[in-house]
Formats: sequence, structure tokens, C-alpha cells
Amino acid sequence: MLNEQVRQKLIAIAGAEGFKDDPQSLVTHSYDGTPMLQSLPDGVIYPADTAQVSAIMKVLSEHRVPLISRGSGTNLCGGTVPVQGGVVMVMHRMNRILEVDLENLTAVVQPGLNTKQFITHVESLGLFYPPDPSSMSISTLGGNIAECSGGLRGLKYGTTKDYVIGLEAVLPSGEIIRTGGKLMKDVAGYDLTKLLVGSEGTLAVITEATLKLIPPPKAKKTMLAMYKDLYGAARTVSKIIENRIIPATLEFLDNPTIRVVDDFAKLGLPLDMEAILLIEQDGDPATVERDIAMIENICRSENADRIAVAADEEEALKLLTARRSAFTALARLRPTTILEDATVPRSKIADMVMEINRIAKKHDVTICTFGHAGDGNLHPTATTDARDPEEVHRVEAAFEEIFEAAIRLGGTITGEHGVGLVKAPFLEWKVGAAGIEVMKGIKQAFDPFNLLNPGKVFAKESRKRVVIDRG
Amino acid sequence: MLNEQVRQKLIAIAGAEGFKDDPQSLVTHSYDGTPMLQSLPDGVIYPADTAQVSAIMKVLSEHRVPLISRGSGTNLCGGTVPVQGGVVMVMHRMNRILEVDLENLTAVVQPGLNTKQFITHVESLGLFYPPDPSSMSISTLGGNIAECSGGLRGLKYGTTKDYVIGLEAVLPSGEIIRTGGKLMKDVAGYDLTKLLVGSEGTLAVITEATLKLIPPPKAKKTMLAMYKDLYGAARTVSKIIENRIIPATLEFLDNPTIRVVDDFAKLGLPLDMEAILLIEQDGDPATVERDIAMIENICRSENADRIAVAADEEEALKLLTARRSAFTALARLRPTTILEDATVPRSKIADMVMEINRIAKKHDVTICTFGHAGDGNLHPTATTDARDPEEVHRVEAAFEEIFEAAIRLGGTITGEHGVGLVKAPFLEWKVGAAGIEVMKGIKQAFDPFNLLNPGKVFAKESRKRVVIDRG
Repeated sequence: MLNEQVRQKLIAIAGAEGFKDDPQSLVTHSYDGTPMLQSLPDGVIYPADTAQVSAIMKVLSEHRVPLISRGSGTNLCGGTVPVQGGVVMVMHRMNRILEVDLENLTAVVQPGLNTKQFITHVESLGLFYPPDPSSMSISTLGGNIAECSGGLRGLKYGTTKDYVIGLEAVLPSGEIIRTGGKLMKDVAGYDLTKLLVGSEGTLAVITEATLKLIPPPKAKKTMLAMYKDLYGAARTVSKIIENRIIPATLEFLDNPTIRVVDDFAKLGLPLDMEAILLIEQDGDPATVERDIAMIENICRSENADRIAVAADEEEALKLLTARRSAFTALARLRPTTILEDATVPRSKIADMVMEINRIAKKHDVTICTFGHAGDGNLHPTATTDARDPEEVHRVEAAFEEIFEAAIRLGGTITGEHGVGLVKAPFLEWKVGAAGIEVMKGIKQAFDPFNLLNPGKVFAKESRKRVVIDRG
Repeated sequence: MLNEQVRQKLIAIAGAEGFKDDPQSLVTHSYDGTPMLQSLPDGVIYPADTAQVSAIMKVLSEHRVPLISRGSGTNLCGGTVPVQGGVVMVMHRMNRILEVDLENLTAVVQPGLNTKQFITHVESLGLFYPPDPSSMSISTLGGNIAECSGGLRGLKYGTTKDYVIGLEAVLPSGEIIRTGGKLMKDVAGYDLTKLLVGSEGTLAVITEATLKLIPPPKAKKTMLAMYKDLYGAARTVSKIIENRIIPATLEFLDNPTIRVVDDFAKLGLPLDMEAILLIEQDGDPATVERDIAMIENICRSENADRIAVAADEEEALKLLTARRSAFTALARLRPTTILEDATVPRSKIADMVMEINRIAKKHDVTICTFGHAGDGNLHPTATTDARDPEEVHRVEAAFEEIFEAAIRLGGTITGEHGVGLVKAPFLEWKVGAAGIEVMKGIKQAFDPFNLLNPGKVFAKESRKRVVIDRG
């Protein structure tokens, strides 16, 4: 519980309507998009502007109270669960588009702005903001920046990091820093902009962002390719890239996912396929036609069993549904859905899927895999039941081995979801003990009293590497 | 001077041929591409591999001897001048391409590899590495990474930072860290990869880099547009971008530069023009034709006096010469050439050029301006004489005002050259006192004894903001 003095100071800053600590508000902000994690905060605050964020931070800093800044809490790594209590700062009142600069192709936004709303606005001006996390209808840009969100267009267009060129942020001391600007190039000192993107709210509270916009593609074409052989699908992915084609989207669904999706969305997908690739290319019309024709040829040469190219926008949307509904369809199956994002070099996609299947079988758990094949970012998703501790334990053991396998294949424990609480014990596997020490030093430089989102990214104890049974 | 014990330890690691401290070697490594800066190191060492770098670092760390890692020393910010003595580590023996992975479109290189040689090799494999700093015939990839080098293709393709996806680096303790990998996405902890790019050798010694490659464009077209009105040229830059065209290259030369270049290269350029734009577009042939046609129209609507579109590769090279020879031509004029890189939002290009001209006149110095108009990165270049302290003082005063003007226009003190020694006093103008403190904290986290490239980035004293005479 907050002491009354702190409480009164916070109310004085944010107003009575801007601070809440009734039980319902506390419970509502005790969890995020991640299953099976919950911890009550001591208060919830809704700042109206940067000055308020700074003033709040000064009070909390003085009294050594933790602060967890968040948007819509759609993250899947427990990134915004207030595990050490403190004040949850919800950025929803700071949700304005401050500027779209058509001369410089930049936008300045507040962190609480909804991602989809921003994308729609930008598109109405004939511009393009590519990062499109699956949660974009609900998520905020501030949350996307904190987690460095990816999405379906990441292969060709990169992730959130590639579009953030300037930030305003409040340090734990309450001081306000500004990094970058409307500048395509800036090497004045260390790159704090890119450091803050993906720092999961542990270094500073982001209060404003300058984003880079690009011209939109003039045309787009969507296709599905279906395979009875997993390796045929994987070789298709590699061959497309080897042929110097970078599609806008290159997504993968495995057989268990296909079955679930078809049952949910009634798309008439062939249930005997081991893999489906969803492929989109965009750009100039002639380029798109040529690339899609080349991709079709590659799919055929790798023995795709069926290929469907969308004739129009409506058909394209139907094909996209197969991929877009994967998470929703899986979430219906059982009470608890755990979606992970182990990532490997794209040439290792098939090996990774085989490893996931082997590990799932070993631990007798159900794991469906889909994801961004083009950038090696897979989402192995376990359907389980949080009320069955024994099964959950097996799921956790399986994911531990999946992370281990990803690292062994030259990959990483998270491609776009973040470390948060869930993957903190595994971070050392990827970055090593020396890497952890350097990162802790950076944390210390920003946040000497460990007030910002404490308990995240760095685990109390790192997991020992498991010994993989290669049998 | 190094004590004999350290000397012997270093020789034991790198071999007698790998360590030098004869006067000639010390003098040769006492300066870099920056005029008027020189300071003798105590030794020069040439490691053969990462293990040697680590062993050397451990010795130097134990004895608290500074280390300055460098490639070819082409930087223009005094970044590799050993101002506090110590050992200069030249990476030229570590100059191999370790791998080009055609499936993942990545390359793994050592830091001492020549940039041009790498680009040529990659192109021979039908791939493309866009960063093309003007110094690329001499520079190394390690140097490019340390400085986050840009180049003529930065507008469309970004800078070195956008292509470095993994690093191996040796910390001041001698420990080896690995960041990122052959991964298009990795959010496992803070982004040390992007933090090390552009950190100017102050945080770690880079010993290996994983670089992203992309498919090359299929066609390219080059043109010049010449203007009697500076604002016409500037409006052309803005209008091209506003029309959703991102050219591969969009370079600018002002009238003084045009005169010097023409005198040097005998190109028959019209000497009464206030500005020349060099524009290149690449991509699919049809797209290139369409974009160049649209750009021609824009140039005409902004009253370009002459437009020359290259009919073939040979003509294109001739047009490129105007821009590529700017620095060489200017360097002939007088004994000392000081090339800066103040950067502004691209919509402010004309205002910035006008400011530069006003400031040059005020201080009675010659400043020619050329640079990357498309990303607002200008290179105001003073021709002067280091032997005339009074004139040099006026040049320095002028540059101080130029940096001030860039900041005032929403820009930065350096777009691609780095802070180094030369711009350290001005860094606070861009990032603020709180920004400096955070950066110093990061430095402290990596390098607690301040052994890596000491005296750079952070100045003993920041310059007070000058009061600009707006008359």
C-alpha cells in the first residue's frame, strides 16, 4: 500500500480522476496479455502530459516506489505485471497524434495512441507505417516501442525499431531527455533512441516519439502455398530469399495449426497438409506480378501440393484469415494458451519446427507452431490448462528445451515479444554472463534505485542450461 | 612510454612483428583524417585474432593503459587520435570475410576488412551492401561500424547501423561478448548491437560483425538538376519526398563548391548556378523510369535552369564525378580543409545553407557546402591554413555558430562523422546535460577505468551556447 503522503502527492499531480487505488482498478492492472501471471499494484495513475509524468516520477523516486508504465498490456512476456507492487502508469490519456510532417515524412505521437488508429490515419494521408503487431487493434505505440514490436510485414520492412527516430522520455530522476529528432541521421553520442526501443519500460518512461513514415506500396498480391512435406515449405522460404526476392509477408502454419484454424474459420483448408505458407508481395504492380510469378514457380519446384493466388482484395483477405485467426482459433481449444516466439536464422526454420514437434511429443504436450517464417520468428503455442499444475509444468519444461534448441540453431529466446518476466531466466543463454553484466550496468546508469519495472529482464537466478536428449 | 613489463607482455601476445614502438610507427599513428590534431601513442599493436585482442586488453586493463582501436583512420572527428597516449590497436590483420550466407543473406566479417573490397565481393555474388562512405576505398568495416558511417545511398538505404545485426566485441575487462546474430529480429535484452555501432571505440573493441545483405536493384539512373535559385533546389528536395519518391541518392552542391569542382575536374558545369542536385534512382527498370520522369517534372516546376539525365553508365559516372570529387577539389585550394557534417530535417536544407553562408561571411572565412540533401546531412567545408592561428580561430568560431544553427533548426551536430574529439564540447547542445549523464553512465558500465579511447565523445568542459547574431 502507498503511504498517504505519496498518495496525496500523486492525486495533487494527476487529479482525483487521474489516480485510482480502489480494489477493482488494482485488480484490472494486476495482469497483462500473459497467462498465469498476476500481482497487485498499489495504485494506478493516468498522467495527462510529460510534465505530470516527470512530477510523478520525482515523487516516486523520492519515496522509492516502483513505477510500471504501460499501454494496453497486450504483451506476452509478463512485461507489465507489477511483480513488486508500486504504481502502474497507464498512458491512455496521452494518446494524441501531435504532428504528421509531410515534408519530412515523420510523425510525432504520444505513447498512449492506439497503433491501428495511427496506421489508419497515416494511410488516409497516403503514407505508410509498416510495424503491424497482431495486437495492433488494441495495442498502443508506446507499448510497441517498449517491446520493439514486430508483425507480419517485418521481413521486408523491419520492426518498430526501424521507424523510431526520436524520443522524449522521463528518467527515474524525473529529468526529461530528448533523443534523435526529425533526422534520418544522427550520431551525436550513444544511440539512446535505439537503446530505449525494446527496453521494456526498465530504463525510462517514453512520453513522445518521432516516427519515420515511408511511401506506401502501390500494389499488393496475396497467395497461399500448401505442402505435404515440411522441408518443401522450408526450402521454399530459403529459395525465395536466395532468389533475391524479399516478400512483404512470408508466414508459416504447421499442420496442427491448420486443423485448428480451419475448424474455427471454416476456410476449407486441406487438413492433410504439413505446412501452409502465406505469402504477400507489395510494390509497383509490375514488380509484384513478376515476384509472385517467380514465387509460384519456386513453390511448384518444391512440390507444393496446392497454390492459391488471390484474384482480388476480398480473396486476399480470406487467405490472410488463415494466419490472422491462428491465435484466436488456438485460444478456443483449451483454457490456457501460451504463445512463445523463439527465433532462428531463416534457413533453420524446418529444423526448428522438427525440434518443437520432438520436444512437444517428449513432454506429452500440445504445441502448434505458426509465425513469421521469412525472418525465422516462430510462435510455438501451447494449449493447456492453468488449473493443472502438472501439465503446466510439462509445458514449461518443453518451452525451456525449445529456447535451448533455438539458441543451439543460432537463434534467440525472443524475436519480438520481449524478455519481461517469462524469459528472464533464459536471457543469459543468449547474451552470456558478460552480456548480462553489461546490461545490468546500463540499467544501473539509468535507474540506480531499480524503480522502473523492477523484476523484469534480469532474473534473480538464471536457469542452468538443460541437457537436451537428442534421442 | 610503456613500462617494460607491459611491453614484453604485449610482444608475447602479438609477436615481435605485431608490436611496434619505434618513433616512425608512433608518429604514423599519432593522427587520423582530421586536420590539426596529433598526439603520440606509446605503442602500436596488430592483433591477429579475437583471442589476442582479449589477451592484450587484459594486460592493458591490469596496468591501466589506454587502448585506441582503429582501422584506416579516415574519420574526420579526431576519433582515433591517441590524446591520452596508450596503445593504438590497428585491426588490419583481422581483415577476412569469414562467411557470406546466401540462404540468410548475411555476411560475417572481421573489422579490418576494407569497405570497398567487401562491397565488391558481395556484388560479385549478386548481393548488395548499401553503406558507401566517401572514404570506402581506404576505410575498414570496423571503422565504419565504430562511427556508424553513412554515404551517398543513405537516404533510401540507411546507414551502417541498419546493416549490422550481430557483433563480437571485447570488453575492457578482456571478456568477449556476442550480440545479435543471423537474425532479423532479436529482442533478448537491451540492444547492445545498435549501441556499439557508433560508439566510437569507447565501449568495446569490435572483433567480428554479422552484416545484413539485400538484393541489389536491377537498374539505376542518374541525373543533375541545376538552379539559379537556392530555394528552388531546396523545394525540389522536399517536393520529391512529398511526392512519395525516395531516391537512392539526392546530393547537393552549392555555388562555391560547383566552381571549385569544375576547376578541378573540368566538367563544364555552369558557374552561375546557386545549386546543383545530383539525383539517382534505382530499382526495377520501369519504376526507375517513372520516378526519374516525375523528378524531372518536379525540377522543371521549381525552375531548374538545366537538367541532364545520363543516357548510359559512362555519362552517369561523369555526373557523379561532380559530387564525388568535391572533397578532393576543395582540398587542393588551401593547405587545410575542415569538413563538417551538421545535419537538419531535410525541409530545412535551404535555411541551413543560408545560415552557413551568413555565418561564413560574418567571420570572413571560406565555407563551401555540399552533402546529402535528401537526409539533411550537409558538409560545410572550410578551406583554411593551419599555420594561421588567427584564421583558424575564425573558422572554429564559424563552425560553433553552424552547430548552434543546426540545433536551432531541429538538427544535430553530426550526422555521420561522429563526435570524437572535435565535437565533444558541443554534444551537450544536442543531448542536454541529462543526456550526457546517461551516456557517461553507459560508458562507466562498459569501461569503469576509462581505458577505451579516453578523451573522446565527452568533453572536459562543454561549450556555452553562443548567442547568435541574427542581424
